[in-house]
Order: sequence, then C-alpha cells, then structure tokens
Amino acid sequence: MRISGLAERTGVPVATLKFYLREGLLHAGTATARTQAVYDTTHVERVRLVRALTESAGLTLGVVREVLTVLDDPPTSRHELLGAAQHVMLAREGARPQEHAELSGGPSAPAADPWASRAAELVAARDWCAEDDPLVARLADQLRAADAAGIDLTDAHLAALAEAADTVAAADVASVPAERAGAVRQVVVGTLLTDPVLLTLRRMAQQRASAGVERTD
Amino acid sequence: MRISGLAERTGVPVATLKFYLREGLLHAGTATARTQAVYDTTHVERVRLVRALTESAGLTLGVVREVLTVLDDPPTSRHELLGAAQHVMLAREGARPQEHAELSGGPSAPAADPWASRAAELVAARDWCAEDDPLVARLADQLRAADAAGIDLTDAHLAALAEAADTVAAADVASVPAERAGAVRQVVVGTLLTDPVLLTLRRMAQQRASAGVERTD
Repeated sequence: MRISGLAERTGVPVATLKFYLREGLLHAGTATARTQAVYDTTHVERVRLVRALTESAGLTLGVVREVLTVLDDPPTSRHELLGAAQHVMLAREGARPQEHAELSGGPSAPAADPWASRAAELVAARDWCAEDDPLVARLADQLRAADAAGIDLTDAHLAALAEAADTVAAADVASVPAERAGAVRQVVVGTLLTDPVLLTLRRMAQQRASAGVERTD
Repeated sequence: MRISGLAERTGVPVATLKFYLREGLLHAGTATARTQAVYDTTHVERVRLVRALTESAGLTLGVVREVLTVLDDPPTSRHELLGAAQHVMLAREGARPQEHAELSGGPSAPAADPWASRAAELVAARDWCAEDDPLVARLADQLRAADAAGIDLTDAHLAALAEAADTVAAADVASVPAERAGAVRQVVVGTLLTDPVLLTLRRMAQQRASAGVERTD
C-alpha cells in the first residue's frame, strides 16, 4: 500500500507517518519510484505500536526509540530481557533529581538516608532483587518525594502496594510466551501498556472501597 | 526567609522558584520592599509539593496547576473528592485519541466495540463504578491500545490487575484521614505519588517471579 493507505489502515495522519519515518521510528518502505514507496503489514504493526506507546503509555519519543531498539535486537537471556525492560522503565521517568544527594547528606552517607534504608528493607524482606539494583534507588527517590509532599506512607499502606505488585508480577510472568521475540514484546511492551490499565483500575476500585466506608459512616 | 533561603531549604534553584511564582504555582511572598519579599514554611511546603508532582509523578505543569486548585479549594463531599482526583487522572494522560471513534465504527455503534464491552463487564462484575463513568471509556482505550500493539491481555491477567487494584484501593481508603483538607491531599496527591511507587514495585516483583520460573526450567 502507499503511504495514504498506511494512514487509512492505522488512523495516523500522513504528516505524522512522515515524521515517524524521519525520526527512525518507522522503517522505510520499498521504493517504487524516486519519491514513492510501498508499505506492508510490518509497517501497520509498527505504527500501531508507536501510537500505543506514545498515547496510552505516555512515553516520550526518546523512550519509544529505546523500546524499539530492544524489540529489534532482543536480548538472549531472560535476565537480560528484564534488564532491558528496567532500563526502559528508568529512562521513562528521567534522571534522578540532583538535589536529593544534597538533602540526604551527600553520597558519603547513604546509610543515613531513611528512604534508602526503607527501600532496601522492603526489597530484602520480599527477596525481590539485589540491594544495589537501580530500581531500589528509584524507589527510595519516590518514597522521599511522597514524604516531601506531605504524604505519610505507612508500613501497612506500603505493604499493600507490595502485595499488589506481587499479584501483578506473578500474572505478568505467567503471560510470557516461551518464544524469544514474543517474550521481549510481552515483557517490555506488555508491562508499559498495562501500567496505565493498573492505575485506572486503582481509581475505579477506590470508588467502590470509598463507597463502602461511606455506608458505615 | 528571602528567596535565596527558600532555594536553600528546598534545593530548588532561585530561577525555578521565580518561574513557579510567575506561573502561579507558588503564592507570592510578603513584600518587604519594592523588589523584595519574604517567604515562610507554607512556601517551603508548596515548592516541595510542586517538585514531587513534576519529578516523581511526572506531571505536566498544567496538571500540577489543577492539583493545586483542588488542594486550595477542597471539595466538600467524599464523592466530589474522588471526582476531583479522577479529573486529575484523566487530565494526566491527555484527551482520548481522535481516531478511536473511527476505528470502532463511530459513536453511533458503541455496543460493537469489544473493548468498551470488556471494560464495562469488568466494572460491573466488581461493582466498581457506574458504566458511564469516564474511567470506563479510559480503560477501554487502554485495552484497545494494548491490543493494537500486539499485546494479548488474557482474562486471567486482567483479573490479576483488578485483584491488585482492589488490594491497593482498600489500603488507599484506609489511609484517608477524617479531616477534610488532609483527606484531599491524601487522595489526590497520595494517589499520584504512590502510582510510580506501585510501578517500580511491579518491576522488582517481576524479577523475583521470573527467577522462580527460571529455577524450574
């Protein structure tokens, strides 16, 4: 199909498709003349993927490019696969804010940081991952940010979030197919695209939980 | 304290503080001279809140402004409070993409949209919220986006996400204080700032769950 056909099939305007092509988010079509090319179902799939990652998952084009790189050259081991998925996760939310090192007493005193300790304790108690995993520092930053904003996250509340994470992760892992390319897509793209689903379900469930409280008032 | 003192206390540069003042994200200090003002602890708290919402929760300044509006003029009923929290959630991810109506056969045939049906069924089965709640349409969009990206979200997987959402929501509601201003902060800001915590925990739990699978290979 021509680029106009690709636009029709995907619902994405031609101008946006040309932008994807220029930015390397979409592979070139097969040239049929000096200024014309034809596109196939691989292009339809790629456009839909880029669209879902930017619109539903809310990723920046830079992060989408990283996701596509992982999909186009999938890691060989399950361990590397999770590493790639995490790398995308860490890239998603940007670099660690600079002022935190200062607030927590500088890099020479990490043990004095109560948020790093709390994150490390949680991870150790659940046997989730290594203490020096970048996700642990990320979690400490998120706990610190919530506290700085005046949110008191109790141990019981954090434990409920951890319990929910275990429930989701077990289903995530069960959903991963044995075949490598499919596994990469399911772990990286599947996690990114079900993150917003989980957050929407949380709001819905809050309504129900809150109604229960109101009835007993 | 002067603006330089506010910068020291919060770790946010003076230039950024002046930007917050211009944008109305931070209330003016008390003028002490034609070009000078002093700031107090209410300014420290507000700066930390804005910082947490932009950096940890990843919100745009437009959404942060909506959150601040809700905090500064809290809704009176619990129902309105949840409505305000949802409004912020919906604003967060932007408007519904336009092409979906087209793909699903237009607004005249909503019943033919399998994603809308699946979202409505889930919500009805859990007695979470009304079928015409904007969150239900949002969920349908997210399910459709995952499918368009080639992700097959099974009923078992979706049920696990729903189960996790109920676990989190019960703890969320239990954490809400009786006092009105505190309740608003906990529901709106607490939810936004623990969203990224939940997503980080999911990645950590995936590592553990995946290691379990690998051991039995």
